Amino acid sequence: AILDRIEDFYATRGDRPLLGKHVVVTSGPTHEPIDPVRYIANRSSGQQGHAIAAALAGLGARVTLVSGPVTLADPAGVETRHVETARQMAAAVDAALPADIVVCAAAVADWRVAGEADQKIKKDGSGQVPALAFVENPDILATVSKPGARRPPLVVGFAAETEKVVDHARAKLARKGCDWIIANDVGSGPDGGVMGAADNAIHIVTAGGVESWPRLAKTEVATRLARRIAETVKERNI
Amino acid sequence: AILDRIEDFYATRGDRPLLGKHVVVTSGPTHEPIDPVRYIANRSSGQQGHAIAAALAGLGARVTLVSGPVTLADPAGVETRHVETARQMAAAVDAALPADIVVCAAAVADWRVAGEADQKIKKDGSGQVPALAFVENPDILATVSKPGARRPPLVVGFAAETEKVVDHARAKLARKGCDWIIANDVGSGPDGGVMGAADNAIHIVTAGGVESWPRLAKTEVATRLARRIAETVKERNI
Repeated sequence: AILDRIEDFYATRGDRPLLGKHVVVTSGPTHEPIDPVRYIANRSSGQQGHAIAAALAGLGARVTLVSGPVTLADPAGVETRHVETARQMAAAVDAALPADIVVCAAAVADWRVAGEADQKIKKDGSGQVPALAFVENPDILATVSKPGARRPPLVVGFAAETEKVVDHARAKLARKGCDWIIANDVGSGPDGGVMGAADNAIHIVTAGGVESWPRLAKTEVATRLARRIAETVKERNI
Repeated sequence: AILDRIEDFYATRGDRPLLGKHVVVTSGPTHEPIDPVRYIANRSSGQQGHAIAAALAGLGARVTLVSGPVTLADPAGVETRHVETARQMAAAVDAALPADIVVCAAAVADWRVAGEADQKIKKDGSGQVPALAFVENPDILATVSKPGARRPPLVVGFAAETEKVVDHARAKLARKGCDWIIANDVGSGPDGGVMGAADNAIHIVTAGGVESWPRLAKTEVATRLARRIAETVKERNI
């Protein structure tokens, strides 16, 4: 009976290889205000990031999901924190560290509007149009990837590209200092794009090379990616 | 028995005072693309416009609802046409005319991005930020209100304001040439704004004066507004 229980213990651990690990996942778009009523958004639905958070929790990890504005329910078994802007997302990720693994799946706005207006910008009938100036947002992936004691052992970024998908992903890997870039083509596909769609064709770009997966349901991409992360955690003894 | 049936007929007509009238209602935000993944949006949820469309249909009107991107279900008994941009909304409204009544409740973007990019605008690491130039969108309310044989007898616009609500609404009424402006304060209220909230405090601004309503559920605003429109249709023999 004791042997059975020991076997059970290991069997359970085998199914939950990320037990005791803390993973931070970002998901969804960010919204960057222009004035009290207008904002800049992007077409990320959060489906892929939310599915990854759920899949990692399914493998036993403690998952903190930092989510931009989405219409999805919070995944069960995951601690979800809701943010709107890139700056809020950066702060929430920072507050959630330390982590063993960080997966930056959110489509964070690269730029925000400089000098957000306090009042609605009005059309005055003169035909004059406003000019918007932008400033760069904090780079969450690069910040998390910075070498140092706080750097999570495995940092995974995403690249949403519309052309030269793998080339851009390699450049992004080098520029950000993360371990993997999951690249996908958001401008093509049978339904005219991956954002908001139910499936996704990805390439995992690492220093070692490129692994290209067939087009799969986003939930299947998430399950496989969580398994792939668990393998790496085991191999690298994270 | 025949008398009963005649009475029934008139009773039913009394409950359906907009029978035989065609109403076009616009609702929701518009999304104006910046590039294949980014766009400019606004905080309109479409709740008020959709509720108005449903309430008008409830009074017997044939309603065409032209809706921007919302997460609401299409109202029952209403023909709903889905659009994304201001230009698409303008074309859909034009295609839906002639109408006896037009209610422009959508929060149409005043401006769109000039020269939408075919490819995702990339952050190249240089720290350079893009500049966005804008052009004015078609003005649906002003276009519908233009004098002429095609002008609907009753044109109602909305004004989402954050300050000097009634003053701005009066100016808008004169500028657009519509019959009523329904003005609301989107920047204040107990929950920090009306957009996305369940209730709404409105002012009906006409050439004759201002009628201010107490803060009500958006469904109640819709019911009362539909009744108010039906009264006007009767009074003015539209």
